[in-house]
Amino acid sequence: MARAVVLLSGGLDSATLLALAKTEGFEPFALSVDYGQRHRIELRCAAALAMASGVVHRVVALDLRGIGGSALTSYAAVPKDRSADEMNAGIPVTYVPARNTILLGIALGYAETLGANDIFFGANNLDHAGYPDCRPEFFDAFTALANLATKASTQDGHRLRIHTPLIQMTKADIIRTGHRHGVDFSKTLSCYDPDAAGRACGHCDACQLRRLGFAEAGRPDPTAYVG
Amino acid sequence: MARAVVLLSGGLDSATLLALAKTEGFEPFALSVDYGQRHRIELRCAAALAMASGVVHRVVALDLRGIGGSALTSYAAVPKDRSADEMNAGIPVTYVPARNTILLGIALGYAETLGANDIFFGANNLDHAGYPDCRPEFFDAFTALANLATKASTQDGHRLRIHTPLIQMTKADIIRTGHRHGVDFSKTLSCYDPDAAGRACGHCDACQLRRLGFAEAGRPDPTAYVG
Repeated sequence: MARAVVLLSGGLDSATLLALAKTEGFEPFALSVDYGQRHRIELRCAAALAMASGVVHRVVALDLRGIGGSALTSYAAVPKDRSADEMNAGIPVTYVPARNTILLGIALGYAETLGANDIFFGANNLDHAGYPDCRPEFFDAFTALANLATKASTQDGHRLRIHTPLIQMTKADIIRTGHRHGVDFSKTLSCYDPDAAGRACGHCDACQLRRLGFAEAGRPDPTAYVG
Repeated sequence: MARAVVLLSGGLDSATLLALAKTEGFEPFALSVDYGQRHRIELRCAAALAMASGVVHRVVALDLRGIGGSALTSYAAVPKDRSADEMNAGIPVTYVPARNTILLGIALGYAETLGANDIFFGANNLDHAGYPDCRPEFFDAFTALANLATKASTQDGHRLRIHTPLIQMTKADIIRTGHRHGVDFSKTLSCYDPDAAGRACGHCDACQLRRLGFAEAGRPDPTAYVG
């Protein structure tokens, strides 16, 4: 069985991604990055999801707070109760500079040590239309880079692939797909600003998209929201 | 004055690089990454070099030991007393998987928070002929990626540049260039396997290349070697 690195944040997108990697016949190795995100309680969700799936899970610690630049890694306020128009207007303060470049770089290093040629990444270009590093052309450029960056890439016939199966799905599509593959969404957390007990705020962009997604998918939302 | 991020390891290459960034008229912001390297005493050299140059210095911690794969981040032995032929035969165990992709990703994030369009990287393709991520085409691919990856890249007319002025220099060239620009090489450390006091082993590939470089440049080598 071919190995694949699956970037697992602990949210519902990457939980579905992990199930898809298995369905496609890969042996997944889950990788989470503790990058100083204030919603790092999601890392506990990632561990629970990996354990439930019976896959190896590694956490790499990266302290990005030293270089700042995002509401997700600082004490700046996470925006709440924004309208769809507000969410789609430009790049939000929750964008983390160069985050996906860094996450994929670490995944590439892990893939190399595993002898894996496949990386699964749960990027979504609909929810994150404002994020430059969620665009399909970004992933094409990363693939080109990856195929020059590693030991394996210097060998004939080697191809590293970045899989982004969720990239054009709506949140409702992702929830339906996850349900079909047996994902337990009660183990996932989407909130950017959970309380100390890990309960979702219910009002940040991520909570609003999640609520709407379950409603559109016609599925019960297992999330414990504070408000 | 335009800002530039300068990746500063504490070795003689990046010390020269920092001086060149200043000479080219940039305001340098030095960035080091503590990636669990066993020769992390080099980070103290980086701090001393930045202080001597009067530039801001940030250290980002990234624990790569969890994903393994290199003699530089594990307890595997660092090779000693290799001949030039041995050094040039394939990719050595001191190669760190995807290291330069990860370092440049972090530098890109820092550049974005600073509003900088320029990143200086001290890669060298002669000493590291066996490292896939020291090849000029790797840096071209990273530049293409960077110009899709950031907020700034979504704005008209923006160009991010990766500067690798040392890429085709010999070690002797780098030492001569550094001397011309007033670099104090006694503040630098090249060794992959220094002792607890920070003294260079004298026998790893990096020590051998350094010794040879000072000899070829006809300059006194200020390094305290153990053996």
